[in-house]
Amino acid sequence: MADFNELPAHVWPRNAKREEDGVVTIAGVPLPDLAEEFQTPLYVFDEDDFRSRCQDMARAFGGPEHVHYASKAFISKKIVNWVNEEGLCLDAASLNELKIALAAEFPAERITTHGNNKDEEYLRLCVDAGVGHVVIDNELELEELNRIAGEAGKVQPVMIRVKPGVDAHTHEFIATAHEDQKFGISLATGAAFAAAKRCLEADNLHLSGLHCHVGSQVFNAEGFKLAAERVMGLYRQIYTELGVTLEELDLGGGFGIPYMPYEEALDIERVAGDMLGAVKDTAEELGIAAPFLLVEPGRSLVAGSAVTVYRVGTVKDVETGKSDLPLRRYISVDGGMSDNIRPALYGSAYDVRVVNRFSDGEEVSSRVVGFHCESGDILLEDGELPNDIQSGDLIAFAATGGYQYMMSSRYNGAVRPAVVATRVGQTKPMLRRETIEDLLSLEVD
Amino acid sequence: MADFNELPAHVWPRNAKREEDGVVTIAGVPLPDLAEEFQTPLYVFDEDDFRSRCQDMARAFGGPEHVHYASKAFISKKIVNWVNEEGLCLDAASLNELKIALAAEFPAERITTHGNNKDEEYLRLCVDAGVGHVVIDNELELEELNRIAGEAGKVQPVMIRVKPGVDAHTHEFIATAHEDQKFGISLATGAAFAAAKRCLEADNLHLSGLHCHVGSQVFNAEGFKLAAERVMGLYRQIYTELGVTLEELDLGGGFGIPYMPYEEALDIERVAGDMLGAVKDTAEELGIAAPFLLVEPGRSLVAGSAVTVYRVGTVKDVETGKSDLPLRRYISVDGGMSDNIRPALYGSAYDVRVVNRFSDGEEVSSRVVGFHCESGDILLEDGELPNDIQSGDLIAFAATGGYQYMMSSRYNGAVRPAVVATRVGQTKPMLRRETIEDLLSLEVD
Repeated sequence: MADFNELPAHVWPRNAKREEDGVVTIAGVPLPDLAEEFQTPLYVFDEDDFRSRCQDMARAFGGPEHVHYASKAFISKKIVNWVNEEGLCLDAASLNELKIALAAEFPAERITTHGNNKDEEYLRLCVDAGVGHVVIDNELELEELNRIAGEAGKVQPVMIRVKPGVDAHTHEFIATAHEDQKFGISLATGAAFAAAKRCLEADNLHLSGLHCHVGSQVFNAEGFKLAAERVMGLYRQIYTELGVTLEELDLGGGFGIPYMPYEEALDIERVAGDMLGAVKDTAEELGIAAPFLLVEPGRSLVAGSAVTVYRVGTVKDVETGKSDLPLRRYISVDGGMSDNIRPALYGSAYDVRVVNRFSDGEEVSSRVVGFHCESGDILLEDGELPNDIQSGDLIAFAATGGYQYMMSSRYNGAVRPAVVATRVGQTKPMLRRETIEDLLSLEVD
Repeated sequence: MADFNELPAHVWPRNAKREEDGVVTIAGVPLPDLAEEFQTPLYVFDEDDFRSRCQDMARAFGGPEHVHYASKAFISKKIVNWVNEEGLCLDAASLNELKIALAAEFPAERITTHGNNKDEEYLRLCVDAGVGHVVIDNELELEELNRIAGEAGKVQPVMIRVKPGVDAHTHEFIATAHEDQKFGISLATGAAFAAAKRCLEADNLHLSGLHCHVGSQVFNAEGFKLAAERVMGLYRQIYTELGVTLEELDLGGGFGIPYMPYEEALDIERVAGDMLGAVKDTAEELGIAAPFLLVEPGRSLVAGSAVTVYRVGTVKDVETGKSDLPLRRYISVDGGMSDNIRPALYGSAYDVRVVNRFSDGEEVSSRVVGFHCESGDILLEDGELPNDIQSGDLIAFAATGGYQYMMSSRYNGAVRPAVVATRVGQTKPMLRRETIEDLLSLEVD
């Protein structure tokens, strides 16, 4: 029998707590109070949780300068500030992510920029702002960037995104193929070596290293290690044939996180140790200097730091006509696929708890759905939830800090919810809730 | 051998034309000119195409008063005005869709409101504005609405959403089950009859009919006919046991449209005739008066009216390592899953054409991808496109008027594209393009 009042520590923010009156607080601030003040749905970040994850990641990899926060998972000026204060570097995956980071006065030299289709405006801003690294995705971009840097009279530090032919997902990885995707330049065909050679010849580029990315929700070091070995073969080739020692190796992101209580947390110390060891050992075997290791965690820093709070509306018991589950409870909330597309897009599941009181209900097969006019508007497909959830209750989804708000839409006229942070009993609004005026502000009369 | 210069008439807007210089125009306005003025990505509506589809639908069902435009597919003040001018009614699926329709001064009495989780503010606005019908989803809402209408001293016309146990998709339908979803009140369990009885007893509700919805992308009348027969069984029960004749029957939307050239257009005259005939015949068999038939098309009115224009950036030939398709061309554009989530969400395919010039290329297996930092950011998974598409070209996706813009996000800092309409050589901006200032406007300092 599940205890519905628990908040599994590896899934919920580190400062989440169910108080003696049954109410859940984040860093001492009651979620019902926040729901009242900022309306629902509402994203609530535990600032110290995020900072502590940054610190853990930095420690595991030997210092914050090894760690680039992948801001595509969640970006706002406040979170950019936290990343800066923790000493980490930052990845921007688009022109506007870069603009937001610069608007928050993040030091450009600690920004790495990504993208498979960077346009001239984006490349020009990278050069003009002086970003630390541009990760070059393809040959066309290489020439463009060299030209733009030349026009600006600068030498732009770059890495090259390499396809190592390694596909790592969850607990397994596929060592071959995965060439069939849009990012990067192939290692296997020799194109990556040719691009590196061209970079080294180019007057206005400085090639500092190579970059690769093996997947997402990765739970062990094997995929990273194999990718490192393959990519470092190219380091040796560059050293041997061109006489150049590359300084850095960026193995990208993809560290897995637990969304559900039955999933285990990644032991980042162990994985980092395995990765660092593999880079060192491979360098020794190859007879080259070990490059400085960079990683780009996004989800693993930010997802677990936030929860989404919804208010329950309609509750329905539905006779399904199905023999394996004759009755299902449908719990409708005031958000849905507009604020969390991941269940519809990826079939993702979440840990859901009542947060305004204790629950002493019995388990009932439940589905949490949104208010959208679409049958696929499902937030939790199959859950065992307490049967005492009723209209007016507040429920929260854990681990919603990454890829929810960023992918949010205005479907069915949904307004983007507010985002707030809490820290030591204080509330800090991060992003205000949209209004109908925001929706109408794009209308041309 | 495909002719890449064709614009298949059943997929492209009715006033789309490839001109003698190879440029594609919509209602006489060249797409490259629009791309220049409003930037890309860009949604372009053919206003007369939309109006003509409204007229066709109205004619098929016996008049515009039978047809409710399901605005969730695409809503803006201009399109609401067009619907109004064509004499159709309008469906709102949420509080904010209702607010937008009212902001465009659509007559409230011709609005029907939907939703599985209507809150008090929504119900109150329905009553205060005097919407024509509220479609009641559940028993809780029924009591709420009766109370709110009572407080306002009004009698609110309503329909009840019934689950008829019919699931129609594409070319087939499933006559049983489909009870396992969030919308409506079950016919089979007797709950729908009980709710109808309660409505008829309630002082401040007027039950005008029943509503059901069988699915989406439906290509024949069979599912609608079976649903009509089942629901009209309840009309007879209500007549026999309660002595009340319900005036209207709303069979919802879901009419299919062709996205790809090899798909056929729905013969709406035939399907409408079948539906009207089935309602009439069933009423005769049951010995009741035939109710006034209502339908709620959204996609079938609006999707085919618009195209999305993108500018091509990176073009890459990728050795896939797969024996069945050793080489695939990746064409990156300046939009992606932020402006069209349907390929990622539903696996949807589109007809894609070069629109800035003639193409005389050969077929090459191609994938059109966006600029997002995500491998699933695919706009066209598998296409045979001309091999002369290059950086700087403009390509357009047809039939993107429904459920693209509405589901658009700001993922990776994407700004929502502009939406413009063309009519007889004139350009009418509908929604302006977002800016970085819009993105930053939600930041709380």
